[in-house]
Amino acid sequence: MNIKLTVIGKTEENHLIQAIEVYLKRLKHYVNYEIIVLADIKGAKNLSPAEIKEKEAELLLKQISKYDKNILFDEKGSQFTSVEFSDYLQKQMNQGIKNLNFIVGGAYGFSPKVYQAVKEKISISKMTFSHQMIRLLITEQIYRAYTILNHEPYHKE
Amino acid sequence: MNIKLTVIGKTEENHLIQAIEVYLKRLKHYVNYEIIVLADIKGAKNLSPAEIKEKEAELLLKQISKYDKNILFDEKGSQFTSVEFSDYLQKQMNQGIKNLNFIVGGAYGFSPKVYQAVKEKISISKMTFSHQMIRLLITEQIYRAYTILNHEPYHKE
Repeated sequence: MNIKLTVIGKTEENHLIQAIEVYLKRLKHYVNYEIIVLADIKGAKNLSPAEIKEKEAELLLKQISKYDKNILFDEKGSQFTSVEFSDYLQKQMNQGIKNLNFIVGGAYGFSPKVYQAVKEKISISKMTFSHQMIRLLITEQIYRAYTILNHEPYHKE
Repeated sequence: MNIKLTVIGKTEENHLIQAIEVYLKRLKHYVNYEIIVLADIKGAKNLSPAEIKEKEAELLLKQISKYDKNILFDEKGSQFTSVEFSDYLQKQMNQGIKNLNFIVGGAYGFSPKVYQAVKEKISISKMTFSHQMIRLLITEQIYRAYTILNHEPYHKE
């Protein structure tokens, strides 16, 4: 199974890039995992949040393939423990899913169009974190899931 | 109000230290915030998880003052949105709390002794994150809370 994480806007903080790199390297042993970075919306400063979400939706929907299994990371989604999340990934593999595409919205969240196109939602937290930091959290969580599935000692219960 | 974050074990990953530093610097404008790092348990490799939690409990309970308001960050705690968390901090200030002490456990969580001594619990996520990463999350969240209370544009609803 291939896993993609689709996000909007470059990670600019160098220390966060490095923190993510650590898990990208480790994940190579388990799965094809890739972070797809879509370009930030140009001139966002002069746009309303709704307009930004609209433009981000266009970008995201162009990127989404109906042949992939697409899932939004969204505050309103279902919450999993790390073990439940590893079970979730195992289920996708058992069902023969080829491409799992996790999608993170911009700072204002998703437009209704995106919710209409992608029904499945997972929530990490009710709290909002910087959308740069969220990439680190998700990448670590996918790594943690694979160590759980492989009975490795990274995760402690 | 002073806010402390009490944690066990040094943050060793340099990029995470740097990521935390960014928020420590920014927080100086709003609040006295300090991360108290208790030493890792020596010889933990030869101890059972229960023994490690016991020894960590001793360390934590020695550090806790009954004159402070102590709160555990724990999976079983109440979940807040970022705005609710900022309201929570505001309430503590309104109640005249001098020292707010957030406590993060080690990799195995807290011993029953700690749960007995500290009743209040906040949860960031059902998922488990590296206890190094949790420090970054909490520090960012406290910063986010103060920007919300000060009507600054960092947090987007």
